[in-house]
Amino acid sequence: MPADTQTPPPVQPVPTYADVEAAAARIARYVHRTPVITSASLDRAAGASLFFKCENLQRVGAFKMRGASNAVWSLAEDEARRGVLTHSSGNHGAALARAAGQRGIPCRVVMPENAPRAKRRAVEDFGAVVVPCAPTLQAREETTARLLAETGAVLVHPYNDPVVIAGQGTAARELLQEVPDLDLVVAPIGGGGLLSGTAIATAALQPRAAIWGAEPSGADDAQRSLAAGRIVPVESPRTVADGLRATIGPLPLAILTAHGVRIATVDDAAILAAMRLFWERTKLLIEPSAAVALAVLLERAIPTAGARVGAIVTGGNLDLPEALFQTG
Amino acid sequence: MPADTQTPPPVQPVPTYADVEAAAARIARYVHRTPVITSASLDRAAGASLFFKCENLQRVGAFKMRGASNAVWSLAEDEARRGVLTHSSGNHGAALARAAGQRGIPCRVVMPENAPRAKRRAVEDFGAVVVPCAPTLQAREETTARLLAETGAVLVHPYNDPVVIAGQGTAARELLQEVPDLDLVVAPIGGGGLLSGTAIATAALQPRAAIWGAEPSGADDAQRSLAAGRIVPVESPRTVADGLRATIGPLPLAILTAHGVRIATVDDAAILAAMRLFWERTKLLIEPSAAVALAVLLERAIPTAGARVGAIVTGGNLDLPEALFQTG
Repeated sequence: MPADTQTPPPVQPVPTYADVEAAAARIARYVHRTPVITSASLDRAAGASLFFKCENLQRVGAFKMRGASNAVWSLAEDEARRGVLTHSSGNHGAALARAAGQRGIPCRVVMPENAPRAKRRAVEDFGAVVVPCAPTLQAREETTARLLAETGAVLVHPYNDPVVIAGQGTAARELLQEVPDLDLVVAPIGGGGLLSGTAIATAALQPRAAIWGAEPSGADDAQRSLAAGRIVPVESPRTVADGLRATIGPLPLAILTAHGVRIATVDDAAILAAMRLFWERTKLLIEPSAAVALAVLLERAIPTAGARVGAIVTGGNLDLPEALFQTG
Repeated sequence: MPADTQTPPPVQPVPTYADVEAAAARIARYVHRTPVITSASLDRAAGASLFFKCENLQRVGAFKMRGASNAVWSLAEDEARRGVLTHSSGNHGAALARAAGQRGIPCRVVMPENAPRAKRRAVEDFGAVVVPCAPTLQAREETTARLLAETGAVLVHPYNDPVVIAGQGTAARELLQEVPDLDLVVAPIGGGGLLSGTAIATAALQPRAAIWGAEPSGADDAQRSLAAGRIVPVESPRTVADGLRATIGPLPLAILTAHGVRIATVDDAAILAAMRLFWERTKLLIEPSAAVALAVLLERAIPTAGARVGAIVTGGNLDLPEALFQTG
């Protein structure tokens, strides 16, 4: 069962580029302005000029810090006092915990009781409360609903939320400020929050640039959904890109459709080969989900010959095998 | 048998800070000015303020590019035409190949025939010729001597060479230009070329800073040699820090002695733990040899409480296990 197929909330107001700009101002003190890097050897491998926006160097190691920060700092004082709540054992949970800690408000993160101890501890280290639940969708929804009722906290959805989307759009905004003349912008797609924000920022700042999503072929719900014009979940997504297993949300689907965003897919072997090449050539650690954008470029799944391509490198958090760090 | 215990050449002229400055000017177009990074969580872990000079982001992924470039570009035209020669299956071999390629002169690298194919290919990809020899010290010396006689090439020793040492010193020079008020500078020590250059630059730019070498306890020839006042090789060095297995050279020993450099040692478990922490917190890949400086700081093997500490992060080249990049 995919992690995010609960009944979606009704479609919310579509964020605009003005919302992205407001988010940028709101979160500037709380997030890093990450570097944009280039690599001559990756350019040769892809046959294009690549500009990587390094959100693996963002706070908590992922772009999720942007949307979470925008959500936390958008709250009115009385809302903030009741705190925030989410269900995510991944980067969004850690980012929300960190952002709430920066504002000094309560944060609860619902997590399946079988979540890796390291992920649980990361959230707790940021001062949030982990609320364990049985590892089923039903248990998660019930736990979340109960906590919302008990605490009056604000639920911050990882992607189906205009405030979160506006925050994620600040990454592409910075990229295009630094490299204005891009022909194409590509970002990985899981639930679609980052790609939606990327589309809004790119359409405003560089309207002639093509906008592409990069998706694992084993979790290609976004490609199917955009083709069908409705959400088509993948029942059992299978990919090493664990951050991209979520099903596209209704708000992202509406935004990506409106902007004519296209989706390219690649398999896990290509994702891991791209991750390795990126590690070796840049010495920067990226997680498998972050390698999907490079993978579609290396696989020529997007027409890019000679183009100037911006790619969002989404995060650098991954479970490294213990054996790597053990003495022989 | 350690890799570098052949009879050392007579001690050569000791390079001065003027030589480091000349090297900096000579190689500026051919090497990167690497960033200096900080990490609040690593500072907390070490109980000091740490400034990491990221030579893992240097060309060929290691500081060795500096010394090799200085050697290549110091050659007169007629010397250059005959090319350069070295014996190194590690970063120095790759760096010399790259530097020679930049100048367009021949480069030969003597390598044991059992060297990893990847290391051999790296050197060949830079346009150098790999000359295989039997994996013994005698075969290596004979092959090197034969090639020198046949080709008239200039031998560029990886560390026992004043020109190479002056080149390596440019890393500490850049670090101290960017962060002038360091209390202490630490660099890993293998053969001692980097630490010698670091000592020369630090003594000139920040004379009150303490200078430390960081060495694996399984290859602690530098610590023993400095204590004894003569070269004391470790017969069978055992450490994961493969770049630090070489025995200190006579010229580095003289330089480190003159500058009152001290050596701290750590075991492999501490080295790998430091490497892991650095990867996780900075998202930058470093090789085990590069983690030794952080390891001595985390282990409190150097007195640093509250100090401002500069550390040279020497390189980012390591053999990653294939399993990391294979689909389930």
